[in-house]
Amino acid sequence: MTADSSIHLPPPAGSAASPQAGAVLGRKPVISREDIVVAALRLVGPQRSVSSLSLREVAREAGIAPNSFYRQFRDMDELAVALIDLAGSSLRQIIGEARQRAVHGRSVVRSSVEAFMERLRGGDKLLHILLCEGAVGSDAFKQAVDRQLNFFEEELRLDLIRLAETNQTGLYEPALTARAITRLVFAMGAVAMDQPPERYPELTEQLEKMVRMIVTGTQVLGNPR
Amino acid sequence: MTADSSIHLPPPAGSAASPQAGAVLGRKPVISREDIVVAALRLVGPQRSVSSLSLREVAREAGIAPNSFYRQFRDMDELAVALIDLAGSSLRQIIGEARQRAVHGRSVVRSSVEAFMERLRGGDKLLHILLCEGAVGSDAFKQAVDRQLNFFEEELRLDLIRLAETNQTGLYEPALTARAITRLVFAMGAVAMDQPPERYPELTEQLEKMVRMIVTGTQVLGNPR
Repeated sequence: MTADSSIHLPPPAGSAASPQAGAVLGRKPVISREDIVVAALRLVGPQRSVSSLSLREVAREAGIAPNSFYRQFRDMDELAVALIDLAGSSLRQIIGEARQRAVHGRSVVRSSVEAFMERLRGGDKLLHILLCEGAVGSDAFKQAVDRQLNFFEEELRLDLIRLAETNQTGLYEPALTARAITRLVFAMGAVAMDQPPERYPELTEQLEKMVRMIVTGTQVLGNPR
Repeated sequence: MTADSSIHLPPPAGSAASPQAGAVLGRKPVISREDIVVAALRLVGPQRSVSSLSLREVAREAGIAPNSFYRQFRDMDELAVALIDLAGSSLRQIIGEARQRAVHGRSVVRSSVEAFMERLRGGDKLLHILLCEGAVGSDAFKQAVDRQLNFFEEELRLDLIRLAETNQTGLYEPALTARAITRLVFAMGAVAMDQPPERYPELTEQLEKMVRMIVTGTQVLGNPR
């Protein structure tokens, strides 16, 4: 699989379960949240959403009895939300690093869009989950995706304000600008996901131009004339 | 249900089946493609995608035997694609009417966005299908949604060219501009769908401003300086 080989999950919220508890209760090898997450990631794909996975399937893939699943997650919804949260924080880190490498207004757009598309082309399953699970599934899924996108938007909003100050440009409604960019990038990412890899350079360039239209628009509309 | 009361479907492609054929073959009342489409529309909703419907379920809802389904549709995929195509043409008609009522550059944006959001607020199931089915499901679904969005983009592209000529403004990459607007509007529509109705006026205004950023951006970037 192409997803992260290094996954670090926070301990389950409000749960006393731990690998040690698992080892005491049964004779199975210690099963962690990470093991279950990795098993679920192996099962999902472009035409297999997290919401369509069954607990039994995930347990089988992880090599544990269905009951052992409950030592780490309350239910499949909690696993799905953990996957979405992990996907969001992983992507924010990638984009954050890309932004730091860039300095000028235009190259921030380019390097962020490129980092996003490279990640997508690499077949990153976490990113695929983030792009897909918002559209269907339970309210819990949709809210988890929305929360991750909101984190993105907030970071981007602060970046936009900083850039506008540095470059002395206008900035029309920073929060709306950040939202428009984020939602457009994710929508185009979902389209790109189904395209063959050789189309990625073209799609990356198109997406960069689209984002540049929004950035130019907000600079002009935000300029008092 | 809130969807269209007047649904006009083209005859099934490459199929000799007709309501008359149905009446001859069985003793059931004549079942049309429209009847099956309407039954399927009753079953889908914000948390129930077309791809999750079973043939048996749709047949039961339509009050026919599962076998009768096949007189009108080859399989569930063909029904889903018919629903998506219907959704696309229905929405294009609404937006087309909104555009014709508007004259100036800015009010075209406003009236189109308003027409889209009103349709969404009305709980139009066809529109909901169009917003949801692109993210999951078979390649056939995704392609059907993509085809409808491409129709949109092409109409919008021609509109943008016409408007730029009329108003003597720049226009940077008409096809990309149309694509950015269409994909952003649909992405924000999917977000709005899950919001309570009282938030729609605010969401409509936000979406209009976002589209205005893109329009302003393309005008400025397309202006030779």
